[in-house]
Amino acid sequence: MKIRQALITAANPRQRTLPLQTLVDRDGETKSALQIILAEAAEAGIEEFGVVVCPGDEANYAAACGPFQSQVRFIPQPDPRGYGDAVLRGREFCHGEPFLHLVGDHLHVSQTATGCAKQLLEIAGGENCPVSAVQPTHESLLTAYGTVGGKLTGGDRPLYQIEAVIEKPTPTLAEQELIVPGLRAGYYLCFFGLHVFDAGIFDLLDARRAAAPDEILGLTPALHAMAARRRYLALTVAGRRYDIGSRYGLLLAQLALSLAGRDRDIVLTQIVGLLAHPSSGQS
Amino acid sequence: MKIRQALITAANPRQRTLPLQTLVDRDGETKSALQIILAEAAEAGIEEFGVVVCPGDEANYAAACGPFQSQVRFIPQPDPRGYGDAVLRGREFCHGEPFLHLVGDHLHVSQTATGCAKQLLEIAGGENCPVSAVQPTHESLLTAYGTVGGKLTGGDRPLYQIEAVIEKPTPTLAEQELIVPGLRAGYYLCFFGLHVFDAGIFDLLDARRAAAPDEILGLTPALHAMAARRRYLALTVAGRRYDIGSRYGLLLAQLALSLAGRDRDIVLTQIVGLLAHPSSGQS
Repeated sequence: MKIRQALITAANPRQRTLPLQTLVDRDGETKSALQIILAEAAEAGIEEFGVVVCPGDEANYAAACGPFQSQVRFIPQPDPRGYGDAVLRGREFCHGEPFLHLVGDHLHVSQTATGCAKQLLEIAGGENCPVSAVQPTHESLLTAYGTVGGKLTGGDRPLYQIEAVIEKPTPTLAEQELIVPGLRAGYYLCFFGLHVFDAGIFDLLDARRAAAPDEILGLTPALHAMAARRRYLALTVAGRRYDIGSRYGLLLAQLALSLAGRDRDIVLTQIVGLLAHPSSGQS
Repeated sequence: MKIRQALITAANPRQRTLPLQTLVDRDGETKSALQIILAEAAEAGIEEFGVVVCPGDEANYAAACGPFQSQVRFIPQPDPRGYGDAVLRGREFCHGEPFLHLVGDHLHVSQTATGCAKQLLEIAGGENCPVSAVQPTHESLLTAYGTVGGKLTGGDRPLYQIEAVIEKPTPTLAEQELIVPGLRAGYYLCFFGLHVFDAGIFDLLDARRAAAPDEILGLTPALHAMAARRRYLALTVAGRRYDIGSRYGLLLAQLALSLAGRDRDIVLTQIVGLLAHPSSGQS
């Protein structure tokens, strides 16, 4: 299974300027967050991008696509009716094929020479079923993430068969429903912001929309339903996600990119200077 | 002399997205770079802001003004005809009064409880002449800054009478023309991105435009002419400037703001985590 399409959601009204933020990538080049996301997917073999945006954001986003602009189609989400609704807007763009799904407010820094999206696509290509990337996450951070429960299925690979998906669980609920054997105590498998889905996700979202047409349509309940009905896997990728919408998320993402990148020594020197003399730095 | 107006230049086509970047201010609040600049000026007593922009950027910039939006007037610069031309566009907005001038791609972090703009305005108010904020800067960085030469005039204050202004001098030229007695060897007084001017600057710019109507109009030659003809001071403010247009400028500005701010301990803890485990961090 070769996956050629990526669907990126970036229509959350509170997060619409995040993909336009400027960062310096591992290669030392200044790019928008959106361009860094597109580059990670392109490096994994993606050729066409659908980006779900607030109506009116198309021009600003197009300017932030860099060299990928001609491969990007913008899909407006007219009303902020939920993450599930944003994904559902991509149905036509995906025309029945499996696709990579990324969120516009997360950046990923791989711990290996293979990018996080590529790690996920390599597994999904072999397993022929939906796979979500996850990261073992401390229970104090569960309020920010969708979280999965399940058990190891991959032999020597960090691959789990998902049995439950809960959005932003309390630590108590997580302890009751989402314990994963083998993880450190107090850690759970939280979404990484990278998934491989097929058209089945749209059917599940459609069914939930039909059952409650006036409600906000989440993605997590549809994923929970998917786990109950078919093989749906989670992969612990070798890397870290950075939610650039969290308070110091942009700072941490930039630090992580820099410390994993070409300019590691330059940036380390400047950080040490700042730590030694607060409010000094580049003088 | 009470100064109530600020002129901010942000029309450089290569830098037009910088004021829209998101940072976390010292108070822990997420703001655009533009809003942080406006807040620094407002805290110093500025009530009206003129922002020189590329035509078409008005709406994006207005959305980035936060609570200052109603006090901001946008002044389009139709063609990128130089920094001096951008300043000259503000002539009508300033209607003959002295004004604070800031650049849209610099953030300032004060080392005291008084903001950098306020430090400058307090001096300018007493001296009744143009004053530019400067920072002692190592000669290896001269290629990025306008640089002044002069001598101490302020008694116990770090105030200099400016005798020469040269844009981005070579170290050799700086050594010949811009040595300032009392600075550490290899250091020069470079602009901080904060100035107090009066209407005289517009007359000087007009004269240079008339002499060479088809050339790019710089600001520095007009400042050099001003230093030759009247009292023009430089103040070493207690603080640091961060050029967010330089490669890791946003990162360093954010680090400096955080380390001088409310969330210092939170951010330090996360930096130490990242340094200890590259590509980890917030797991």
